Amino acid sequence: MARIKKTRLLVIHGPNLHLLGKREPHIYGKTALSEINKRLRLVAKRRGVTIVIKQSNLEGEIVDFITKAKVRYQGLLINPGAYTHTSVAIRDAIVASQIPTVEVHLSNIYCREEFRRHSLISPVAKGVVLGFGPGSYTLGLEALIDLITG
Amino acid sequence: MARIKKTRLLVIHGPNLHLLGKREPHIYGKTALSEINKRLRLVAKRRGVTIVIKQSNLEGEIVDFITKAKVRYQGLLINPGAYTHTSVAIRDAIVASQIPTVEVHLSNIYCREEFRRHSLISPVAKGVVLGFGPGSYTLGLEALIDLITG
Amino acid sequence: MARIKKTRLLVIHGPNLHLLGKREPHIYGKTALSEINKRLRLVAKRRGVTIVIKQSNLEGEIVDFITKAKVRYQGLLINPGAYTHTSVAIRDAIVASQIPTVEVHLSNIYCREEFRRHSLISPVAKGVVLGFGPGSYTLGLEALIDLITG
Amino acid sequence: MARIKKTRLLVIHGPNLHLLGKREPHIYGKTALSEINKRLRLVAKRRGVTIVIKQSNLEGEIVDFITKAKVRYQGLLINPGAYTHTSVAIRDAIVASQIPTVEVHLSNIYCREEFRRHSLISPVAKGVVLGFGPGSYTLGLEALIDLITG
Amino acid sequence: MARIKKTRLLVIHGPNLHLLGKREPHIYGKTALSEINKRLRLVAKRRGVTIVIKQSNLEGEIVDFITKAKVRYQGLLINPGAYTHTSVAIRDAIVASQIPTVEVHLSNIYCREEFRRHSLISPVAKGVVLGFGPGSYTLGLEALIDLITG
Amino acid sequence: MARIKKTRLLVIHGPNLHLLGKREPHIYGKTALSEINKRLRLVAKRRGVTIVIKQSNLEGEIVDFITKAKVRYQGLLINPGAYTHTSVAIRDAIVASQIPTVEVHLSNIYCREEFRRHSLISPVAKGVVLGFGPGSYTLGLEALIDLITG
Amino acid sequence: MARIKKTRLLVIHGPNLHLLGKREPHIYGKTALSEINKRLRLVAKRRGVTIVIKQSNLEGEIVDFITKAKVRYQGLLINPGAYTHTSVAIRDAIVASQIPTVEVHLSNIYCREEFRRHSLISPVAKGVVLGFGPGSYTLGLEALIDLITG
Amino acid sequence: MARIKKTRLLVIHGPNLHLLGKREPHIYGKTALSEINKRLRLVAKRRGVTIVIKQSNLEGEIVDFITKAKVRYQGLLINPGAYTHTSVAIRDAIVASQIPTVEVHLSNIYCREEFRRHSLISPVAKGVVLGFGPGSYTLGLEALIDLITG
Amino acid sequence: MARIKKTRLLVIHGPNLHLLGKREPHIYGKTALSEINKRLRLVAKRRGVTIVIKQSNLEGEIVDFITKAKVRYQGLLINPGAYTHTSVAIRDAIVASQIPTVEVHLSNIYCREEFRRHSLISPVAKGVVLGFGPGSYTLGLEALIDLITG
Amino acid sequence: MARIKKTRLLVIHGPNLHLLGKREPHIYGKTALSEINKRLRLVAKRRGVTIVIKQSNLEGEIVDFITKAKVRYQGLLINPGAYTHTSVAIRDAIVASQIPTVEVHLSNIYCREEFRRHSLISPVAKGVVLGFGPGSYTLGLEALIDLITG
Amino acid sequence: MARIKKTRLLVIHGPNLHLLGKREPHIYGKTALSEINKRLRLVAKRRGVTIVIKQSNLEGEIVDFITKAKVRYQGLLINPGAYTHTSVAIRDAIVASQIPTVEVHLSNIYCREEFRRHSLISPVAKGVVLGFGPGSYTLGLEALIDLITG
Amino acid sequence: MARIKKTRLLVIHGPNLHLLGKREPHIYGKTALSEINKRLRLVAKRRGVTIVIKQSNLEGEIVDFITKAKVRYQGLLINPGAYTHTSVAIRDAIVASQIPTVEVHLSNIYCREEFRRHSLISPVAKGVVLGFGPGSYTLGLEALIDLITG
Repeated sequence: MARIKKTRLLVIHGPNLHLLGKREPHIYGKTALSEINKRLRLVAKRRGVTIVIKQSNLEGEIVDFITKAKVRYQGLLINPGAYTHTSVAIRDAIVASQIPTVEVHLSNIYCREEFRRHSLISPVAKGVVLGFGPGSYTLGLEALIDLITG
Repeated sequence: MARIKKTRLLVIHGPNLHLLGKREPHIYGKTALSEINKRLRLVAKRRGVTIVIKQSNLEGEIVDFITKAKVRYQGLLINPGAYTHTSVAIRDAIVASQIPTVEVHLSNIYCREEFRRHSLISPVAKGVVLGFGPGSYTLGLEALIDLITG
Repeated sequence: MARIKKTRLLVIHGPNLHLLGKREPHIYGKTALSEINKRLRLVAKRRGVTIVIKQSNLEGEIVDFITKAKVRYQGLLINPGAYTHTSVAIRDAIVASQIPTVEVHLSNIYCREEFRRHSLISPVAKGVVLGFGPGSYTLGLEALIDLITG
Repeated sequence: MARIKKTRLLVIHGPNLHLLGKREPHIYGKTALSEINKRLRLVAKRRGVTIVIKQSNLEGEIVDFITKAKVRYQGLLINPGAYTHTSVAIRDAIVASQIPTVEVHLSNIYCREEFRRHSLISPVAKGVVLGFGPGSYTLGLEALIDLITG
Repeated sequence: MARIKKTRLLVIHGPNLHLLGKREPHIYGKTALSEINKRLRLVAKRRGVTIVIKQSNLEGEIVDFITKAKVRYQGLLINPGAYTHTSVAIRDAIVASQIPTVEVHLSNIYCREEFRRHSLISPVAKGVVLGFGPGSYTLGLEALIDLITG
Repeated sequence: MARIKKTRLLVIHGPNLHLLGKREPHIYGKTALSEINKRLRLVAKRRGVTIVIKQSNLEGEIVDFITKAKVRYQGLLINPGAYTHTSVAIRDAIVASQIPTVEVHLSNIYCREEFRRHSLISPVAKGVVLGFGPGSYTLGLEALIDLITG
Repeated sequence: MARIKKTRLLVIHGPNLHLLGKREPHIYGKTALSEINKRLRLVAKRRGVTIVIKQSNLEGEIVDFITKAKVRYQGLLINPGAYTHTSVAIRDAIVASQIPTVEVHLSNIYCREEFRRHSLISPVAKGVVLGFGPGSYTLGLEALIDLITG
Repeated sequence: MARIKKTRLLVIHGPNLHLLGKREPHIYGKTALSEINKRLRLVAKRRGVTIVIKQSNLEGEIVDFITKAKVRYQGLLINPGAYTHTSVAIRDAIVASQIPTVEVHLSNIYCREEFRRHSLISPVAKGVVLGFGPGSYTLGLEALIDLITG
Repeated sequence: MARIKKTRLLVIHGPNLHLLGKREPHIYGKTALSEINKRLRLVAKRRGVTIVIKQSNLEGEIVDFITKAKVRYQGLLINPGAYTHTSVAIRDAIVASQIPTVEVHLSNIYCREEFRRHSLISPVAKGVVLGFGPGSYTLGLEALIDLITG
Repeated sequence: MARIKKTRLLVIHGPNLHLLGKREPHIYGKTALSEINKRLRLVAKRRGVTIVIKQSNLEGEIVDFITKAKVRYQGLLINPGAYTHTSVAIRDAIVASQIPTVEVHLSNIYCREEFRRHSLISPVAKGVVLGFGPGSYTLGLEALIDLITG
Repeated sequence: MARIKKTRLLVIHGPNLHLLGKREPHIYGKTALSEINKRLRLVAKRRGVTIVIKQSNLEGEIVDFITKAKVRYQGLLINPGAYTHTSVAIRDAIVASQIPTVEVHLSNIYCREEFRRHSLISPVAKGVVLGFGPGSYTLGLEALIDLITG
Repeated sequence: MARIKKTRLLVIHGPNLHLLGKREPHIYGKTALSEINKRLRLVAKRRGVTIVIKQSNLEGEIVDFITKAKVRYQGLLINPGAYTHTSVAIRDAIVASQIPTVEVHLSNIYCREEFRRHSLISPVAKGVVLGFGPGSYTLGLEALIDLITG
C-alpha cells in the first residue's frame, strides 16, 4: 500500500521527567529534557518522520494520550517513569490502542531498588532499550521507526 | 420513612472503557460503551431509578466522583477497570463515602493474567458480578437496585 | 437449529448449604435453602426453563452430578461452597463436561479469611455472581439463561 | 438449669484410622482403633456421658455426621486425619453446627512433613491435644466433658 | 520362596477418568477408558498376572479401595486424576497399606497449570510414568510387574 | 548564612483527606481537615514560618505540587493517604526535588490491613510521625521546622 | 529397675504469665497463676509426684532452668508464652537436656495472629495441649505423668 | 475525676542504646544517651510530669519493667532497639499491662536493612515517631503526654 | 511414507552418571552405566532401532549433542542428572532441535531434597519415567520408540 | 590520550544461537546467525571499529572469552541466551574484567516464561536492548560504540 | 606503632554450650566445653595473646559482654549458639562495639534444619569457620589472631 | 593402620579465580592466585602432604576433576566461586566421590548480594571457612589435613 502521508509518532515522557538534568544526575545524567527532545527531533528529521512530544505527571492523562494516539499516530515511544512499575492502566491503554510501542529508560532499572526491577509495560512493548542515558531515547526512536517502516 | 425522592445511582466506568467495542474484542466483546449505557438506562427506567454515568481515565477523578457521590446518590455501580488491581485510593473513597457499591467486570478476571486476579475493590463492595460481558452491567444494576430498595 | 425441547438447567448446592438460614446468619443470611430453591423455581418458570436442584456434601458426588449433566442439561448453576477453594476434581468435571457454568456465592468471599479469597472454580466458569445473599442465586440463574438462550 | 438428659458426645475418626495398629506403628503406635474406642468408652462411663463413635474415609460423610450432630450431641471429639490439612468443608461444618469441638492427633503433627504442620480445623476447635498416641483421645475426651459440663 | 498364587494387582482410575476419550481430547487423547482397560488386560495376560480395575470420583472411596487392597493385592497402579494435587488421604492410604504403587498420568502434568505441577502422591509412589497418553498405563503396568516379580 | 526570608513550608493532604471528620471516625477521628489546618497554622505562626496547604486526590497533581515546591519551599509535610502504599511517582518526586520531607499519618497504619503496613514514602522521608490523630500533623510540623532551622 | 525415689517434674511458666487473670481476660481467662499452680499441685499430689514450679520473663533463665533440670527432674511441663514463637535457645535446651516435655497453652494459638500460629517448641515436645484455659495445664500434667510412668 | 497526683511516665531504652554517641554516629547521631535523657527531663519538667528512665540489654528485664509499670506509671515511652524486630514478649507485656505506649526510633528504620523494616511493637503502640534522631524522643514524649492528659 | 532408513535414537547420560553403581547405591542402585547401556542396546535390537549413547559432565557439550542431533536422530532419551534442575540451556536445545524427547531418572526425584523436585526439562519432554532404577531407562526407550513409530 | 589503535569489540553469542533462523522462528525470527553477523560487520565497518564474533554453548568457555577479553577489547556485546537466567559465573566474569558490556536479546524476554523474566546479567551491563529481533544486535552495537567512543 | 601491651581477646560461648560433650554427641561431638577451652588456651599461649572466656545463656548478657569488650579487648571469637539465628541485639552489639569478630560453629549449620541455615551474625563478622567440631574454635582463634596482628 | 603412602589432596579453584589480585581488589584482596598457591604449598610441605592444584572456568570440568579425584586423593579443598550458588552437578560429584571436602571463600559471602548468600556446596562439605581472604585457603587446608589425619 502506498504511504503518502508522513509517518507520525508519539513520544511520551512520564512523571518527574520534566526535572531531567536537575534530578539525581548520578542516576539520570545531566542532560535536560529539552536537550533530549532536540536530539529526538534531529533523528526524526533525518529519518523523515513527524514526532509529537508530550510529558505528564498524571497516569490518567497518559492513558488519554495513548488511547487518542490510535487514530493519529503509527507508533509510540514511551518512558513511563515511575508508572513503569505500578500502572496497569497504561499497559491496558497500549494493548487497547494496538499501537506499536517501544519502552525506554535512561538508567539501568535492573541495578536499582528491587521494586524498580519489574516493568508492567515491557510485556506489551515490542522492544525495550535501557541504560544508555539520553541514548536510550534516540536508539529507541530509531528502533521504532525501523519497526514501522521496516 | 417515605421515599418521595427518586433513587439516584451513580455509574462509573474506569480507564480505557471508552474504547469498548474497539479494544480486544475477543476479551471485552464488540458492544460499545454507548450501547452498554443505553441498556443501563433501560433497566433504570424500568425499575424507576435515576442513573448518572461517568467515565474517567484518572484515578483521582474517580476518587472525586465517589467522594462527592455521598450526598447525591444512594448507590454506586463501578467497573474500576485497571484500577481494580492497583488503587487503594478508590477503595478508600468507597469506604469513606459509605455508599453501597456493586463492582462489575466484563471479562472473567480470574482466567486472565495473575495480576488481574486480585481486586482491591471487592472486599469493600457489597457484591461482584463478572464475566457476562455487557450483561455484567445490567445484572449488577439490578442487584444494586435490589440492595437499596430491597 | 430449532430448539423445541425446553432448556434444562442443573443447580448444585455444595457442602453445608443444607444448613442455610440456621448457619452463621450474620454471614449467610436468614433465608433457608428451601426458600432459595422456591425463588429459583419462580425465575425458571418465568423464563420458561426447567431446573433440577441437587445438594451434596460429597465432592465426588458433585463430580458425578456434573459429569452426568453433560447429556441432560444445557447449563450449570453452582455454589461450590467449601469446595470452591479445594476441589480440582469439580473444576476438572466442569471442563470435561463442557457445560456452561455460572458460579454463585451468598457472601462476598473476598472480605473473609485469606484461604476463601481464592476460587479454583472461577477460572472455568463463564461468570461469577457473589455477595448478594439469595440474590446471587437468582441473578446467577438469570445470567445463565441469558448465556444459553442469548 | 437442670440437666436430666445424659450428655451425648460424638467421636469421629477420619480417613485411614481404621487401620490403626497396623499402619506405620513407629508413628501411630501399636494400639488398634477398637482398643482406643474401648478406652474412650471407659472414660465416658466413668464421667457419666454417652458417646457414639463413627469412622469414615469420606470427607463429605464426615460433613454429614457433623451437621446432623447438631441436634443430637452436645460435643464433638474429632481426629480429622488427613482431612486436617485439606478440608474447608469439615471446618465449615463445625462452624455451621456450632458444636463444641476438641481436635486430637495421635502423633505430633508438628514434627512431621511440612504440609502436616498446618491444621484447617484447629482455628475452629475449642482446644487441641496431640502427640500422646491413644492418650490424646482419652485426654481430649476428658477435656471435652470438662468444657461442656464445667 | 515359591510363588504359587498368581500375582494380583489393583488398578485405580481417579475422578473424571470415566469420561476419557470425550474429555478435552487435545490434552487427554481420544482413547476411551474401556480401550485403556482392554490394553491393560492384554499386558496382564501376557505377563501372567491378574488385574482388577476400579474407577471412582470419590476421594474416600479410593481410600477404601487402597486400604482394603492390602490383603488381596501385591501392587497398585493408580492415576489419581485431580486428587493427585489435593489428597493427603490417598497418600496416607498408600503409605498405610504399604502396597507398592506406580503413579501414571496421561498428560505431561509439568507443562500444564501451576497447581497441576505438584503431586502429593509421587513422593510415596515407587515410580511415576507420565505424558505418554494410554501408553503411560501400559508402561506403568509393565514397570509395576517388574517391581514385584523382579 | 543569614536567613532573612521567612522559611516557607508546603503541607500536602493526599486523597480522601478532604472528608476528614466524616470518614470512618473510629479510625481517623472526628476532627475535620479545616480544624487540622487551623492547628497547623497556629504552630506555623508560633514558630515564625509560612505554610501553604494543598489537598488533592490526584497522584500526578501531588507530583506536580512537589516538583514545583523545590524552588519555593524549604520543607514538605505530607500525609500521602492511600498513595503511601502505591505511588512510586510521589516517592520519585520527593527524591527528585530533594526537599526535606516529614511523612505523617492520622492512624497507626501498622495495626491495619496488611497492604497498609508498607510505605513507599517512608524510605525517602527524613522522619515519620503516625498514630496520634491530628497530633501527628502538629508534631510532624514541629519536627520539620526543627529539621530545617535546627 | 526399682523406682523408690518419687518422680520429680518441673513446671515452667514463660514471660508475662505472672500477670494471668489480670491480662486480657477475654483471651487468657480470669484464673490467676497462683490458682493454676494450686490445681497443678492437687494433680501432682493425687498422682504421687513432686512438682517444682518456676516463672521467668528471661529467655536465658528458662534455658538455665531446663539445662539444670536434666539431673533433678524426670519431666518438663512448659508454657513458653511469647518465647514459643521466637526461641531457638529454649528449643535447643529441651533437646540438649533430653527431658520429656509437654507444651501447654491457655489459648488456642491457632486462631490468633499469624505469627502466633508457629511454635518452635512443638517439634521437640512429646505432646501439646492447648485451648482449654487452666485445663491445658492440668491435662498436660496428667499426660506428662502418663508418659513417664506409663 | 481529680488528678492530684502528678502523672508518672516510664522511659525505656532497649539494648545497645547505652552506647549512643559512640555507636555508628552516621546512623544514630553523636548525641550521648545522657544528653537525650537530659532533654527528656527538660520536657517533663516543662510539661509538669515525672519521668523515670531505664535502660536494659535484656529482653526479659524489659518485660519486667513493663509489667511492673502498670501500677506505677500512666504511660510508656520506649525505644525497643533491636528487640523491635524480634520480641513477641515485649509486645505481649505492653498489651498485658495496658499501658499507653509511644514507640520511638532515632533512625528511619524504613531505609535500613530489610529485617529492620518490620516492627513487632508498632501494632500495639498508640503512635510511632522515627527518624528525627534525639528529636524522636522529645517529640514522642510530647505526644505521650498529650495522649494521657489530652 | 516409506521408512527405509532405520530409526536412529540418541541416548544422553548427564553429569556424574559415569559413576553409576559406585555412587550412593542406596539411591541410585548397584547397576553400572555399562550394564544399563547393554540393556538399552538389547531393547534397541529387539525393537529394530539404532541407538547412539553419550555421556557428558558438561552442560554445553550436552547442548552440542542435542542441537546436532536434529539432523541425525529421530528421538532423544535423556537423563539430565543434576542439570535437570538448573539448565535452561539444555531445555532450549530440546525445544530448538524439536526432537521428541523422553526424560528418565533412576531415583524418584519427588521424594528427595526440595531443589530436586523441580525439573526444567519435564515441560519440554513428551513424557517422563522415573523411580524404577535402570528400568526407567528401558521403559523410557520403549516409550520413545512407541512415540516415534506409533 | 591519543587513540591510534582502532577500537576492538568482542561479540559473544550464547548457547543455541548457532541454530538461529531454524529455531522457533515465531519467537526468534527467520534470520540466520550468519546474516546477523554480516549486519554487525557492516555497522562495525561504517563506525570504524573492529569486531570479533564468537559463539559457544559452554558457560565456562564464555567465561574464558570474557576474562581474556580484558586486555584485547574495549567493549563487549553479548546475547547470553539461556545463561542470562542462570549464570553467576558469566556475571562475575563481566565484573571481574571490567569491560563495558551491552546485553541484547532477540525476543522480548519479559513476555515469555516466568523464569526468563529475570536476568542475572542486566545488573552488570551498561545497557540492554531487547525485542527487536536482529535489530537488537545492531542497535546494541551502535550503543556500545557510542558508550566507548562517546 | 609499638605494641607493648599483650593482645587481649574475648571468647564467648552462647546458650546451651555449657552442656557440650553431653548434648547430642552425634551433632556436637563428645568434647566437653572445658576441653575446648583448654585447647583455646594452648593456642593463645603459643601465639602470645591473652584470652578471656565467658559463657552465657542470656542474650542480653552476651550483649553486655560485647559492648563492654570494646575498651578491653582487641578481638572477639564467638559461637552464638541458638542466638545465631534470632538475635538482632547481638548483631547490633558487634557493630556498635566495632570489635573484629570471628564466628564459629561446631556443626555444619548448613546441613541442619531450615531455620538454622540463616545467620544474623555472619554479615557482621570478619570471617566464619564451621563444621570442624572443636577444630572450628582453634582455627577460628588462629584466624582472629592473624586478622589482628597480621 | 600404617600410612606409608603420603596423603594426597586436591585443591580446586573455580571460575574467574585465575584473575585474583586483579579482580575487584576491594572484595577479593590484592593477592594473586599464584601467591595463594605458594602459601598452600608451604602449608602442605610443613604438614607433610602432597597437594595438586587445578583451576577451571567450566562446571563440567570441575565435575570431572572431582569424580576422578576419588581414586587418587584423600581430600578436596575447593573454592567453587560462582558455581557455589548454582551447581547441583558439583554438589553431586562431591557426594558421589565421597571425598572429604572443605569449602573456602575469600570474601564473606554472607554480606554480599542476596543470591550469593546461599551455597549449594556447604551442605555436602565437612566444614566451611570464609571471609579471611587468602587466609581462608590456608586455614581450610590445615582443617582438611586435621580431618583426614586426625
